[in-house]
Amino acid sequence: MLIGGIEAGGTKFVCAVGDENGNIIDKVSFLTRQPDETLDEVKKFFDNHPIEALGVGSFGPVDLNKDSQSFGTILNTPKPKWKNYNLLGRLKKDFHIPLSLDTDVNAACLGEYKYGIGSDVKSCLYITVGTGIGAGLVQEGNTFQGKNHSEMGHILVQQHSDDFSFNGSCPYHGTCLEGLASGTAIEARYGKKGILLADDEKVWEMEAFYLAQAILNYFVMLSPERIIIGGGVMKQQNLYAIVRENFLELMNGYLEVENVDELIVAPSLEDEQGIKGAIALTI
Amino acid sequence: MLIGGIEAGGTKFVCAVGDENGNIIDKVSFLTRQPDETLDEVKKFFDNHPIEALGVGSFGPVDLNKDSQSFGTILNTPKPKWKNYNLLGRLKKDFHIPLSLDTDVNAACLGEYKYGIGSDVKSCLYITVGTGIGAGLVQEGNTFQGKNHSEMGHILVQQHSDDFSFNGSCPYHGTCLEGLASGTAIEARYGKKGILLADDEKVWEMEAFYLAQAILNYFVMLSPERIIIGGGVMKQQNLYAIVRENFLELMNGYLEVENVDELIVAPSLEDEQGIKGAIALTI
Ligand SMILES: Nc1ncnc2c1ncn2[C@@H]1O[C@H](COP(=O)(O)OP(=O)(O)O)[C@@H](O)[C@H]1O
Ligand SMILES: Nc1ncnc2c1ncn2[C@@H]1O[C@H](COP(=O)(O)OP(=O)(O)O)[C@@H](O)[C@H]1O
Ligand SMILES: [Zn+2]
Ligand SMILES: [Zn+2]
Repeated sequence: MLIGGIEAGGTKFVCAVGDENGNIIDKVSFLTRQPDETLDEVKKFFDNHPIEALGVGSFGPVDLNKDSQSFGTILNTPKPKWKNYNLLGRLKKDFHIPLSLDTDVNAACLGEYKYGIGSDVKSCLYITVGTGIGAGLVQEGNTFQGKNHSEMGHILVQQHSDDFSFNGSCPYHGTCLEGLASGTAIEARYGKKGILLADDEKVWEMEAFYLAQAILNYFVMLSPERIIIGGGVMKQQNLYAIVRENFLELMNGYLEVENVDELIVAPSLEDEQGIKGAIALTI
Repeated sequence: MLIGGIEAGGTKFVCAVGDENGNIIDKVSFLTRQPDETLDEVKKFFDNHPIEALGVGSFGPVDLNKDSQSFGTILNTPKPKWKNYNLLGRLKKDFHIPLSLDTDVNAACLGEYKYGIGSDVKSCLYITVGTGIGAGLVQEGNTFQGKNHSEMGHILVQQHSDDFSFNGSCPYHGTCLEGLASGTAIEARYGKKGILLADDEKVWEMEAFYLAQAILNYFVMLSPERIIIGGGVMKQQNLYAIVRENFLELMNGYLEVENVDELIVAPSLEDEQGIKGAIALTI
């Protein structure tokens, strides 16, 4: 059976055709433009493939409450024209097959859970630290959804005492986690892209200070067996070790952590976790 | 069918016999002493009742991972003799009937979900602000459990700028939420019990500052339809209004909150949510 997947991102869309085993047969990616233009391109790609189901991992916040009038609609987003766009409605018009919709991070989490570094555990959390920060959770094969959707990047954490002069980059909360630790926040604080700050240790110590707090919060609340951190900012490979160290220090023995190197890890699917997970949403 | 319930608290134990509809037929409560003494008393109470199942909502942290060797054991606790006590093991020896074990806060949450102020929604979170802080989540009738258990009271939040001199009361994390906002924290900060500070507005403004942050974190992560806050500290009734106000301010329109007065509420079962929920765990 052929299954379609869409990784609907704010910057780019990835569409792919694959199967139940995580194989990808055809794949395309293009920049995210206006909603209908973008969805036209999606339709064009799948027109050549006899898919029998379609899974979508979407940027957000997206309304995932099936009882809601705006189910499948993109909610508050700074992206022009996308705010209040009925993504699922448009897809339903184009595709008369079963559709599965979830957040981009839940899809990525499911991808790693089924085919990647989460395939030996029963629950995992996937955190992406890129332009924004988001996280998704899979337990026993199911993605976690609340009434609506979770936007875990917007939690509040303690601000670093060397960072009090920074007002944060989140347009809603200022100094929420995303406002303090996303790639956008790094750029706003230092006036330079993260990649240009690679050799500045202080930058990554502060980054790890925030990420470790977020991971502590996620861990004490959700207790996942594995925590996968991906996204552009994590290309700074040295971050993993400092995050682990900070996390253990913060935890201070309260909850047992058997092996922190196996608890906090990098993704393993080389940027295909999102699209493979989108396909897997339909299974 | 008669069902037993135990609300196993660090200060007191409540045992009750009830039915599937939330009715309580007999109830007893006694102080928590040494583990085996306490469990002797539990056995004595139920010896007079032909219960067919037993549900337990326990203080914690308690190991809820069914794959773990220490499943059903109390983990890190400052309570002497209870650390590493195999609660479920002892109950299994005394009761040869189906046993259901969960955290005290999950049980309380289930009680309100089934019989109280959560009975008209699909998911609710129950937060208790007492000697410590804990929270439990129920979605579609099921309590939420991670690999192990969640200890949501120990999340990190931003410290109030007037509070930087306070080191927090959590023995593990200092200034985690519990360390900043539990009844114990209030007493440590001001040198007086909360009840004696009733007329000091600043105390409750700071308390609401922390609780609202925690609720924001819980809300963006778990997206429950209703958030019930109970526990001794919430006897300070005026807190509800300030917490709601602070929460909306922090959210700043990011996620829609239809009606904050229906989102953030007080419990409705007059201290029976825990024991009714414990009984309901078996259903
Ligand atoms: N090597 C790097 N070191 C630090 N930050 C990086 C690096 N590469 C990319 N970034 C940052 O990651 C962010 C982009 O993240 P990415 O996950 O690629 O995209 P998106 O989140 O938009 O999907 C940008 O803020 C960028 O500056
Ligand atoms: N009216 C009140 N105002 C403020 N704090 C109170 C009040 N009543 C009790 N507390 C505080 O609540 C805590 C006890 O909480 P409670 O939920 O009754 O017990 P526990 O958490 O041990 O089960 C104590 O720290 C106590 O000082
Ligand atoms: Zn934010
Ligand atoms: Zn703590």
